[in-house]
Amino acid sequence: MPKVAIAGAGLVGALNACYFAERGWDVEVYEYRRDIRTMEHVPGRSINLALSHRGKCALEAIGLKDYIVNQGVELHARLVHGKDGKTFSRQPYGQPGEHIVSINRRHLNEAMITQAEKKPKLFTLYVFFYSVNDSEVHVKADLILGCDGAYSAVRKSLSNYPGFNYSQEYIAHGYIELNILPKNGEYALEPNVFHLWPRGHFTLIALANRDKTFTVTIFAPFSVFEEEMSTPEDVESFFKENFPDAYELLGRDHLLGIFRSVRPQSLISIKCQPHHFSDFVLLTGDAAHAMVPFYGQGMNCGFEDCLVLSETLDACNGDICKTLSMYSEKRVKDAHTIIDLAMYNYEELKDLVNHPSYKLRKKLDLFLNRIFPKTWIPLYSMVTFTRIPYHQVMEDRGWQDKVLKKIKYSTMNIIALLTILGVYVARKHGKLHLK
Amino acid sequence: MPKVAIAGAGLVGALNACYFAERGWDVEVYEYRRDIRTMEHVPGRSINLALSHRGKCALEAIGLKDYIVNQGVELHARLVHGKDGKTFSRQPYGQPGEHIVSINRRHLNEAMITQAEKKPKLFTLYVFFYSVNDSEVHVKADLILGCDGAYSAVRKSLSNYPGFNYSQEYIAHGYIELNILPKNGEYALEPNVFHLWPRGHFTLIALANRDKTFTVTIFAPFSVFEEEMSTPEDVESFFKENFPDAYELLGRDHLLGIFRSVRPQSLISIKCQPHHFSDFVLLTGDAAHAMVPFYGQGMNCGFEDCLVLSETLDACNGDICKTLSMYSEKRVKDAHTIIDLAMYNYEELKDLVNHPSYKLRKKLDLFLNRIFPKTWIPLYSMVTFTRIPYHQVMEDRGWQDKVLKKIKYSTMNIIALLTILGVYVARKHGKLHLK
Repeated sequence: MPKVAIAGAGLVGALNACYFAERGWDVEVYEYRRDIRTMEHVPGRSINLALSHRGKCALEAIGLKDYIVNQGVELHARLVHGKDGKTFSRQPYGQPGEHIVSINRRHLNEAMITQAEKKPKLFTLYVFFYSVNDSEVHVKADLILGCDGAYSAVRKSLSNYPGFNYSQEYIAHGYIELNILPKNGEYALEPNVFHLWPRGHFTLIALANRDKTFTVTIFAPFSVFEEEMSTPEDVESFFKENFPDAYELLGRDHLLGIFRSVRPQSLISIKCQPHHFSDFVLLTGDAAHAMVPFYGQGMNCGFEDCLVLSETLDACNGDICKTLSMYSEKRVKDAHTIIDLAMYNYEELKDLVNHPSYKLRKKLDLFLNRIFPKTWIPLYSMVTFTRIPYHQVMEDRGWQDKVLKKIKYSTMNIIALLTILGVYVARKHGKLHLK
Repeated sequence: MPKVAIAGAGLVGALNACYFAERGWDVEVYEYRRDIRTMEHVPGRSINLALSHRGKCALEAIGLKDYIVNQGVELHARLVHGKDGKTFSRQPYGQPGEHIVSINRRHLNEAMITQAEKKPKLFTLYVFFYSVNDSEVHVKADLILGCDGAYSAVRKSLSNYPGFNYSQEYIAHGYIELNILPKNGEYALEPNVFHLWPRGHFTLIALANRDKTFTVTIFAPFSVFEEEMSTPEDVESFFKENFPDAYELLGRDHLLGIFRSVRPQSLISIKCQPHHFSDFVLLTGDAAHAMVPFYGQGMNCGFEDCLVLSETLDACNGDICKTLSMYSEKRVKDAHTIIDLAMYNYEELKDLVNHPSYKLRKKLDLFLNRIFPKTWIPLYSMVTFTRIPYHQVMEDRGWQDKVLKKIKYSTMNIIALLTILGVYVARKHGKLHLK
């Protein structure tokens, strides 16, 4: 049996390990951090994950879907919180029943590793320490999978080879994680919605966990953190003014405690092309395509990578060389598309959700979707509730935009025609005289 | 006096060393290759350089201009060679007298290092070897300049810091260097022009050297090298068919010898932002902005970096911290612009130079330039014969495009009006009857 060496025991590394163990390959996983299950939790640095269709399909193929979904909380709509702390606007994600699942990152990672370890003998988990001066590991394998995240060491080792295109882009925004505890043993906010406080340049979100807490994240430009949230007093008044209802639930002590101990974390977009090197190295997950978290697709895309890789291996009858180039060929453009969409969606989360034209389009999309469920699928739904390849999603959206534009113009034409006709009839009957 | 440590003794490193030595700083230059003056020449891998106004200005500021210019050959126009080996089209670069200077890269680098070494005591040249496992050098300095080229180690060490944006892009084309020797002791081709054989997907160029040789470069997609130039017979017939006159001058033996021993070299575009890190590291030259060679601005932009850095240091009264952020602020957008222009200019060199609309615009530009020498400067001239910041060059070009478009439309309007008037007059006089 061939052997695969997997760099990284994060979400995508663990899932890939399960896939290859199922396939009967020898699997070795290398992770330079300690076993996440034995580590202390560092608060302030995580963002909750939103599992959607692509991720679920990838989990289902190896029988993990139900187990994982049961660890999370269903979200059916966005609930937009007004600045007065009282008004709300509810925007369903899709048709009734369509939802995403909020999951705590650490919790999920622990579950994945435990599941992976259950696979029979084929699977070996190497957890070891890097010394301060990175020690090198020499591995012989038929396939090396770089699943070592946005700062991938495997990717770095490829970056000097001619033909390896690469870009990294930091956005001007950083984030800090906060928490809302249960209130009298119950959820302090409605659990089955994605809570959103969009305020133009910055935004706050809250996602429920199974333990009745909420993971809350504030996104803001670093300059806003520096200028408007530098002292405890500033933080307090900033939250009171912009997120009064959230402030009450977070509590002053928790808020100031986190802001004292944690600096805003940065967000990066990474693209590379191709995703493979020669006939034995492949990058998957964040190592190949780190994206900003605003479409909730980072993990889903990474999980789908495992599924696509498995499908491609099947299609190529296990020929690794063919598989890698075919995989890159199709996956690079999908990854690039969702990276761009994630960047764009930040505009939505920050601000657009409050615009009437945005709301109208959202409603129109859902209405047309109800009439033509197979032909007219809104952009968000295609990304979140289908496995239509990301690049095709954009093509379909382009087609929809064109149709709507035509309808708009035809409507305008009809109105213009009716007006002219009206004028003509009016003149004919002497009701209107142009001077 | 402050101390500057310069990584890299290439063209930009050596020029920066001269600048800082003149300024009275302690200067240390680190180079991991052997002294270029003692190295054997490796054929096939170099492209001649074209020194133009920006580079000359940078050399002039430290008294090196005349010395360097005298090592090169003036080029006043492009001479486009037809596929029959007989027809030519001459396209002047600018107004009479305006020219660029062709210089051999190695020759120039040697001259620069020798000049830098002549600077008084302040200057120390450290030439040493890296071992196979890169040995690390620890340097204490007030300023570290990364002048270590497209594959910069200094830049790599910055790439993990949040906020450092970076991209590298290989183009589909590679190149191979060839040479044309003197014929009966004289230049085998007209020396004072840039020889160009544009053939759509691929192109050949030839630039004269002072020793009466020509450095010739073929640019083609890697796929064309693989599919159409893989065997000696293929190379021969490819050159005979596409560049018959050049083939005669290159000679079969030389051509096949080079193709046997050298593989096509790749071409890369690199952008990063900012160019500095904290208050003590700055990237200049290819380390900050590698570009494809099609605008002949790589070295000129790198030399201008040294001048801009010096000007900025003066403007900031030697305050390094202020200098670095001010330098990045203006130089990043200039670098990004010329990188994009260089990429675009490949289209010109490959193909556009043969298009009538391109030739017309070129002539129109030069004509308008003669009438309005200060207001209407053609794009190529702004880049090549002025120090107008690159990003402003593009703004000016945008303005020119708009004017020409307006003129075009007004001309079309006038023609339309005259036509209608003509029809009207003709009908009035009974000369035209519409059926």
